[in-house]
Amino acid sequence: MKLNILFTALFLSSLAFAQKTEKKNYQYINPLIGTQRMGHTFPGATVPFGSVQLSPDTDTIAYELNKKYNGKVYEYCAGYQHEDKTIVGFSHTHFSGTGHSDLGDFLIMPSTGELQLNPGTADKPLSGYRSAYSHANETATANYYKVKLDDNNITAELTASQRVGFHRYTFPSTEQAHIILDLMHGIYNHNEKNVWTFVRVENDTLITGYRQTNGWARTRTVYFAMAFSKSIKQYGARKYDENNIYKGFWRKFDESKNFPEQAGRNIRMYFDFDVKAGEQVLVKMALSPVSTAGALANMQAEIPHWDFDKTKHDGELLWEKELNKIKIETLTENDKVNFYTAMYHAFINPTVYMDTDGSYKGLDQNIHKADGFTNYTTFSLWDTYRALHPLFNIVQPTRNADMIKSMLAHYDQSVHHALPVWSHYANENWCMIGYHSVSVIADAIAKGNDDFDKEKALRACISSSNLKYFDGLEYYTSKGYVPEDKNGSSVSKTLEYAYDDWCIAQIAKNIGNKAVAEEYTKRSNNYKNVFDPAIGFMRPKMNDGTFKKDFDALDTHGQGFIEGNAWNYSLYVPQYPDELVKLNGGKEKFTQHLDSLFTMTLPDKYFANTEDITRDGIIGNYVHGNEPSHHVAYLYNWTGHPEKTQQRVRMILNGMYKPKPDGLGGNDDCGQMSAWYIFSSLGFYPVAPGSDQYAIGSPNIKEATLNLENEKTFTIIAKNQSPANVYVSKIELNGKLLDRTYLTHKEITQGGELVFYMSKKPKK
Amino acid sequence: MKLNILFTALFLSSLAFAQKTEKKNYQYINPLIGTQRMGHTFPGATVPFGSVQLSPDTDTIAYELNKKYNGKVYEYCAGYQHEDKTIVGFSHTHFSGTGHSDLGDFLIMPSTGELQLNPGTADKPLSGYRSAYSHANETATANYYKVKLDDNNITAELTASQRVGFHRYTFPSTEQAHIILDLMHGIYNHNEKNVWTFVRVENDTLITGYRQTNGWARTRTVYFAMAFSKSIKQYGARKYDENNIYKGFWRKFDESKNFPEQAGRNIRMYFDFDVKAGEQVLVKMALSPVSTAGALANMQAEIPHWDFDKTKHDGELLWEKELNKIKIETLTENDKVNFYTAMYHAFINPTVYMDTDGSYKGLDQNIHKADGFTNYTTFSLWDTYRALHPLFNIVQPTRNADMIKSMLAHYDQSVHHALPVWSHYANENWCMIGYHSVSVIADAIAKGNDDFDKEKALRACISSSNLKYFDGLEYYTSKGYVPEDKNGSSVSKTLEYAYDDWCIAQIAKNIGNKAVAEEYTKRSNNYKNVFDPAIGFMRPKMNDGTFKKDFDALDTHGQGFIEGNAWNYSLYVPQYPDELVKLNGGKEKFTQHLDSLFTMTLPDKYFANTEDITRDGIIGNYVHGNEPSHHVAYLYNWTGHPEKTQQRVRMILNGMYKPKPDGLGGNDDCGQMSAWYIFSSLGFYPVAPGSDQYAIGSPNIKEATLNLENEKTFTIIAKNQSPANVYVSKIELNGKLLDRTYLTHKEITQGGELVFYMSKKPKK
Repeated sequence: MKLNILFTALFLSSLAFAQKTEKKNYQYINPLIGTQRMGHTFPGATVPFGSVQLSPDTDTIAYELNKKYNGKVYEYCAGYQHEDKTIVGFSHTHFSGTGHSDLGDFLIMPSTGELQLNPGTADKPLSGYRSAYSHANETATANYYKVKLDDNNITAELTASQRVGFHRYTFPSTEQAHIILDLMHGIYNHNEKNVWTFVRVENDTLITGYRQTNGWARTRTVYFAMAFSKSIKQYGARKYDENNIYKGFWRKFDESKNFPEQAGRNIRMYFDFDVKAGEQVLVKMALSPVSTAGALANMQAEIPHWDFDKTKHDGELLWEKELNKIKIETLTENDKVNFYTAMYHAFINPTVYMDTDGSYKGLDQNIHKADGFTNYTTFSLWDTYRALHPLFNIVQPTRNADMIKSMLAHYDQSVHHALPVWSHYANENWCMIGYHSVSVIADAIAKGNDDFDKEKALRACISSSNLKYFDGLEYYTSKGYVPEDKNGSSVSKTLEYAYDDWCIAQIAKNIGNKAVAEEYTKRSNNYKNVFDPAIGFMRPKMNDGTFKKDFDALDTHGQGFIEGNAWNYSLYVPQYPDELVKLNGGKEKFTQHLDSLFTMTLPDKYFANTEDITRDGIIGNYVHGNEPSHHVAYLYNWTGHPEKTQQRVRMILNGMYKPKPDGLGGNDDCGQMSAWYIFSSLGFYPVAPGSDQYAIGSPNIKEATLNLENEKTFTIIAKNQSPANVYVSKIELNGKLLDRTYLTHKEITQGGELVFYMSKKPKK
Repeated sequence: MKLNILFTALFLSSLAFAQKTEKKNYQYINPLIGTQRMGHTFPGATVPFGSVQLSPDTDTIAYELNKKYNGKVYEYCAGYQHEDKTIVGFSHTHFSGTGHSDLGDFLIMPSTGELQLNPGTADKPLSGYRSAYSHANETATANYYKVKLDDNNITAELTASQRVGFHRYTFPSTEQAHIILDLMHGIYNHNEKNVWTFVRVENDTLITGYRQTNGWARTRTVYFAMAFSKSIKQYGARKYDENNIYKGFWRKFDESKNFPEQAGRNIRMYFDFDVKAGEQVLVKMALSPVSTAGALANMQAEIPHWDFDKTKHDGELLWEKELNKIKIETLTENDKVNFYTAMYHAFINPTVYMDTDGSYKGLDQNIHKADGFTNYTTFSLWDTYRALHPLFNIVQPTRNADMIKSMLAHYDQSVHHALPVWSHYANENWCMIGYHSVSVIADAIAKGNDDFDKEKALRACISSSNLKYFDGLEYYTSKGYVPEDKNGSSVSKTLEYAYDDWCIAQIAKNIGNKAVAEEYTKRSNNYKNVFDPAIGFMRPKMNDGTFKKDFDALDTHGQGFIEGNAWNYSLYVPQYPDELVKLNGGKEKFTQHLDSLFTMTLPDKYFANTEDITRDGIIGNYVHGNEPSHHVAYLYNWTGHPEKTQQRVRMILNGMYKPKPDGLGGNDDCGQMSAWYIFSSLGFYPVAPGSDQYAIGSPNIKEATLNLENEKTFTIIAKNQSPANVYVSKIELNGKLLDRTYLTHKEITQGGELVFYMSKKPKK
């Protein structure tokens, strides 16, 4: 609590200073938001969609040990937990907001005094190279992170370009200055994770190599080239076995000291320098998905110099450019911090995944060249199809089309002939459920952002939706539902497949393929097959056609759902909200049902095993910290009670997003939570991606200007905006009354002005 | 013994048949020579310098187990031992004649009946997929191997193109026909050898993937594309832990059956087919050092068809073309078999190491393109600098220059800035001693086969000869010898470094670099520093300058030598034979000394730990089975007794090389043993590679015609040739008396006729 107060105080004082000098948008970014508890964001340096995410890691406890000792297996998804007192070092790759993890490549840590090559433990930081630090000495801004390492009195600063991490270490007076390169370190480590590591000391300032891991991505290799700003005095290496025990070297050399070539499963290296008090040693670490030659070329292309401040500033300008796509006026500074930090978090993943020459490693592990597009990776699609990709279709249309081209390249390279499910670094990790790539494609097509091969895209969608061995699809395609006794989380799967099938039908309609449109429209009604009218909930059905007995609609586990209970998931028919209302007994009955969701008291026992969200991430039984309910607050628009949508949305905006480290009520999930914030703050939300409509809610800004890529602007004005005035009494689009609860994509992209008249009383 | 008789009988009968139809040279090739005991050759199919060596492996006992149970750790260097009764399967990469090993990639084995995915053991072949076989049902000829697998009554046939192994399996009537792909199998396996394996079933006839190992080559990856001639009915995979115990699968799929993507450390796969009795299933396995895409392109380029017999015949023609470079007439058919099989073994390694487009993986693990040359790998230089590369300078000059270009590319890519020592598959394994690349380069330059950058070559040689951390060079360069108490095998190292330094001096002289020539000429005299005149032998010197006490000049182990004792190694001053004679007390004393070497009786105890040679590989104390003495028989030329050279050479030719499986008295060592045979049979030998002279011995042929690349021919005629007429009474070169004991390279390459007049009495 003390830390939070300190944090807020520091932050407000920096705001106060900045205000005077006409503050830039990027200066509202606070990378520490979400770094405490369940946000799973990282505080380090990155540029928009950057291949490098250079950030401090506060723990390296291996997965197995973690599970054994405290059960917090998901705590270190982004490597950093704000409550931790020590920093292990600075690694170059991090997911933003995920609930499972990987990466943490190439940890660098400066130290002084007697060489320590083990990281040590958090309770005894002096036992290893890790260091205590204090938030009082920590700065995190757009593309910049700074911290004082207390154990060694070293100041560490980090910044980055697209593919290069840039470190600046200011050493105290010392006889022994080391920079450690820990090639064993990784996020979500376990004994078999490190597959192979290869390192060459090319000369007295350049190191190259690669690290190959078997983690969430089974076959992942990242190549690097690392340059020092001054000559190495001496260097060395140690190899370790799977249990972090020192392992001797072999062959005819003393490979432990000044031997320029290392290869093995687990390697740590150190580089020693002669430094004067206050001297700065800089390190550039370039990454490549292709080769060490590629990494070196990336470094030469992006940061040929040693001007740390220039790289930092270049990155700030890149963020400013992206943030300028939505200029806002808000009631409070906190709203601006929330909004621009949400944009920041929305623009981290997916990441660019190719060398400067367009080469990248494909899913088939061959090297491909991105021809005419930028190749992206890290597709957390179960999360991001909902609002992040729809947001991109408004403010990042070129990138979104390139992401779809990347997904189609994935399909081309897939031995499964499938689009990505959850993919990263040339691997499919198959995480979560559904084939939501089809939603991303359908949404882009529905919105005219379709500069890709649509016929091929439809073929890819059809193929993905018929992958027999995937998650019960064999049963779904033959029976119309996934039987719970054949394949778990069966209701969630059935519901999401049905929605995805509707998306495929939309694509087919768009390109005039009637047969496919009909077939998939039929499949899109499969949601009905798992609705049990007897209890009014979606409910798992068995292979014999009977519903599961002993059913608990409140429990998230073992009831046929994933990351959601029956209460939340039964509302998941985004493709047919009107039908959903009917299924639930009509508008009034459904309104009451929704009200109950938000107001009921959920017994604590239902939170015992939840790791993706915090207690704060829940309102009644409405779970905002997980994604399946993200559209739910907007469903009142279909029950004749848009004012309830307006009220709920404002409540969620202000309750679930706070400008502090523990301000996120759940995993940010590669920007999906943030995208929800951005859309809802602007006053509308894509309930059914794949349609061109946005459900209207209640804006949280005073004014917003969308600077579109087509050079048009779309302005949103909320008249009489105030914390109390959450209700919309009237809407005008380009001066004309807008008498409906939705907005179309074209109305945005053709430019114009949308005026909300806010009121503290709901409109009758 | 029975088997040998059978073998000889079969072979002679095939000869008898072939004689009638004007036999081709390639038909004299007998790949089974050297496959029994210590020859370490393989009997399978390959084309000249082929990237693929497709051959049966008769055991897969892992290194650790092997060591534990029978100590024969070096027995399976080529995967096949002629005395074994079972065949495990057919793998695609094999060294020829090495004393250490690696490779054995991608073992394929057909089987019927109940699926067995473990190889089983030799004593219980029915316990696994391996099969008993009989030499009566085995055929091995140039680029063709055939065997009946007795356990399943399957006939297996193998052939190959440059980069593709081609299998033809004839199945009996069976309900269950399997083809197993064992990706765990490897030669010289041990628990940590398999690093990663990746496989994709692309469609019902095509499999791709790679295998990455940590063996003799630390970081070695081989990529493959495998095609079947008919559709797979079903397929599956199993993963195993390091101890070959079945390991379950993970994630959301049943990956064990019909799941198209596999990744892990240890994987075996099976593919099932519907076959009729007598039906043939063909398999093409293409390799690439670069990628699966490269492997597939190699397959399409080299064997786009399914005509097994065509590929077999194409390979026979390639061998015929190479063998036609030396047309011989001999006293016996056996001499022809020996000679052409020696040429066959000489033209297996080094192997072509690049895709059809010239791409290959370099020592830095980056992909490079061979620009204007063919890239080769597998440089067993401690062996092959002696006679194999000199032989190439006569009959394979283009290939030898390309090999040097490959060595210079290795230097460019080496973080050690060194030329190859013993390199294979983008790795330096540092095996044995010396920096003998410099000899290969010096020899090529001395012989005018120098179409490469000579200035750069000299830089590379100088750098290689000053690699401080390599094998005592730090001491050698400062003290003039390697101290035994600092670095073992010190005398061998000192002697070989001194010879290598002489080679560098020759290169420097050639390009007019006097300073380097002087410096290295000085270094080339360092052999004197380890000669102990008190005992008349080279002897280990300690760091303090005193000679090692307790010295045994007969022992090969622990006395400062490697693969040789002081008796043999003390004769290793090939660069200065006259000086060596002087050092040993002059011509007569040295003649007696050499006589003693050949005639003394060596106590059996000195053979207890020898694994590279057989008892038959030794004459007195002269060890022909290892390389350090290969020049020794020719030293009599410098003592005024060339007739003793002539007699010894003929004795060795006829005693150490026999046309039968156990016919080689030691490891063939990538063709060095064979190259000795070829040179000596022709009547001369390169005592000091790097000079342009060949010491004249006693030819074993009746006539030989060298068809040179410059389109000239050099004919050697041995008049009055007979087994008894081993002495040369007169030599005429182009009709003129040649009154010296050497021949120059130019005399060969300008074409002409060399006539030996043979006699049963030595010339006075």
